[in-house]
Amino acid sequence: MSSTAHTMPGTTSLPESVALRDDKAAVRIVDQRLLPQVLETIDLDNAQDMWDAIFQLKVRGAPAIGVAAAWCYYVLARQAIEAAQSMQDLRTRLAENARYLDSSRPTAVNLSWALARMEAAADQFAASHAAASPSDIIPVLEAEAQSIHDETVTASNEIARLGASLLEDNWGVITHCNAGPLACLGYGTGQGPFYYAHDQGMKLHVYVDETRPLLQGARLTAFELTHAGIDTTLLCDNMAAQLMREGRVQACMVGCDRVAANGDVANKIGTSGLAILAKHYGIPFYVLGPTSTIDLNCTTGSNIVIEQRDGSEISDLHFAQPMAPAGIACYNPAFDVCDHSLVSAIVTERGICRPPFEESIAALFES
Amino acid sequence: MSSTAHTMPGTTSLPESVALRDDKAAVRIVDQRLLPQVLETIDLDNAQDMWDAIFQLKVRGAPAIGVAAAWCYYVLARQAIEAAQSMQDLRTRLAENARYLDSSRPTAVNLSWALARMEAAADQFAASHAAASPSDIIPVLEAEAQSIHDETVTASNEIARLGASLLEDNWGVITHCNAGPLACLGYGTGQGPFYYAHDQGMKLHVYVDETRPLLQGARLTAFELTHAGIDTTLLCDNMAAQLMREGRVQACMVGCDRVAANGDVANKIGTSGLAILAKHYGIPFYVLGPTSTIDLNCTTGSNIVIEQRDGSEISDLHFAQPMAPAGIACYNPAFDVCDHSLVSAIVTERGICRPPFEESIAALFES
Repeated sequence: MSSTAHTMPGTTSLPESVALRDDKAAVRIVDQRLLPQVLETIDLDNAQDMWDAIFQLKVRGAPAIGVAAAWCYYVLARQAIEAAQSMQDLRTRLAENARYLDSSRPTAVNLSWALARMEAAADQFAASHAAASPSDIIPVLEAEAQSIHDETVTASNEIARLGASLLEDNWGVITHCNAGPLACLGYGTGQGPFYYAHDQGMKLHVYVDETRPLLQGARLTAFELTHAGIDTTLLCDNMAAQLMREGRVQACMVGCDRVAANGDVANKIGTSGLAILAKHYGIPFYVLGPTSTIDLNCTTGSNIVIEQRDGSEISDLHFAQPMAPAGIACYNPAFDVCDHSLVSAIVTERGICRPPFEESIAALFES
Repeated sequence: MSSTAHTMPGTTSLPESVALRDDKAAVRIVDQRLLPQVLETIDLDNAQDMWDAIFQLKVRGAPAIGVAAAWCYYVLARQAIEAAQSMQDLRTRLAENARYLDSSRPTAVNLSWALARMEAAADQFAASHAAASPSDIIPVLEAEAQSIHDETVTASNEIARLGASLLEDNWGVITHCNAGPLACLGYGTGQGPFYYAHDQGMKLHVYVDETRPLLQGARLTAFELTHAGIDTTLLCDNMAAQLMREGRVQACMVGCDRVAANGDVANKIGTSGLAILAKHYGIPFYVLGPTSTIDLNCTTGSNIVIEQRDGSEISDLHFAQPMAPAGIACYNPAFDVCDHSLVSAIVTERGICRPPFEESIAALFES
């Protein structure tokens, strides 16, 4: 199976957001920063460009980052075998690449998860083939990256199917940030159920938080949903409370960047606020993500490091001119932590977890 | 006393945001849309420009709109006496002007309140001076506009003083939108206590919601506070929940556009969401505004008409290029209604109201 064999499901006719280029010498990604004006792919063939692409959010969304990291590791390995003197030398070079790629974003667990899988595959091969030529490892790494890619698409589609079972015809639903086809491949997680339900003929009205500061909701989610022909309304993040007060929302669905063992959720900044509003108005709040997003080593959300980003994203970015006084201090966390008490259910590809989450999440990994 | 005699208090060295021009033929306002880049005044000398200035938010903030409307009414009256055949004819023309100005924004009660006061002054004079020359009414209307202006400044400063009594040294406080010197004259209401406390030597850290879609927090409040030398941090509206979770906020203070008899508050979109977050985290939520903002004829917030504005404010405004797909539907309410159960106190120039608000608000008007 070629790495570019996945096609986007249903009414979505977007290119896959992460793929290995046909010649296998570069990772081809949709540059998500250019949307919604321009739908363009770029090729990443060196470590610096790969690091920048993840750091600058050209490729973003936890599952897409994981798949991109796996393919980046593979492409860099193809380059490393040229210079590697031995299998042991190659292992050192691969580990260095993994550390470097892993440093691009601290919060997304899928990044470290995918790189750890690639490293483990390399370890296993190197341990049992110490005398092999460095190039012998390449098919092994390609197969591992392809598995990560395939499993991501399968998980995404299953989460979408399970999530859609929580929705009813003619509901208003609200979502935050972007966890659709571009971010997750396949149908997506946080918004996956909307595409799945749409393909099943269900009618939903989807309200999309613009998601400041980087506007992933306005630029990406609104683009993907309207592209698929789904009834979509854009709003500023601070309008969700009034929307709920007016009775227009029957469910909230969001993706997640990391889930702690107790069900605390780290996701795009603004998620926990939306969850508090939903609780206040008695609206179910669903978190959707693959089990790779669940970090059992992280007991509660207090252990999750919140990435603090540059204040210019708030004061300047996307604007023709600065929109705040020069030199103003800014508070710019990229994520927030959503207490498990605010979450109605966590939908994974292995099933739907309900409170108490410590038990239901643990059960996912026992079966 | 000249209409331009007010100077901004304390560390603020801004021009007064609404004033009658020295020749009395125009209303001079600070064009709040150009801030923070440019601090510029514009002169309004005809009804169309006046209507546009209020509708387009060149002059904004409930108290400033009230004062602007009073002076606009006066300037238009000076023009109307040229053509008026009689006092009765003049009354008809003045009433038409009032209706026209009143149509510029539906939610701000100060607009109708100030115009009704000017109309009442005109009525009273016309009734008792039916045979007078139309020009005789001009000094009466100038005096009434000046009273509205003076009372607004006095109320603003008193609200700031009372509000500051609710704060403590070294607190973190969060505010939304803009209700400072530009919007309210004097110290201001929603942010007035910060300037008052600063002038008293109190140290506060003020967190400012950027306040999408029109960014009054980023453009105006952050500008005013840093201009006054107050420790200020800007954040996106959706970051307030995380800020509270981190324990950085000890009080919320906001202005108000209309308060119902039961304490329900209509204010800039995003206010009710902030109030729900504050309640969730056990942080006091204070609403500050002059008694002219309280509408005893409005029994609950459900009776308040929420202005719906153009979607391009969300999808396009302030951006070099559109930030959402072309033609996307937008939900763009200018205000929201904040249930009285979420409000800790309402601070007016006549005193601080605590729950139950139906009693404490009524008592304000009995004394």
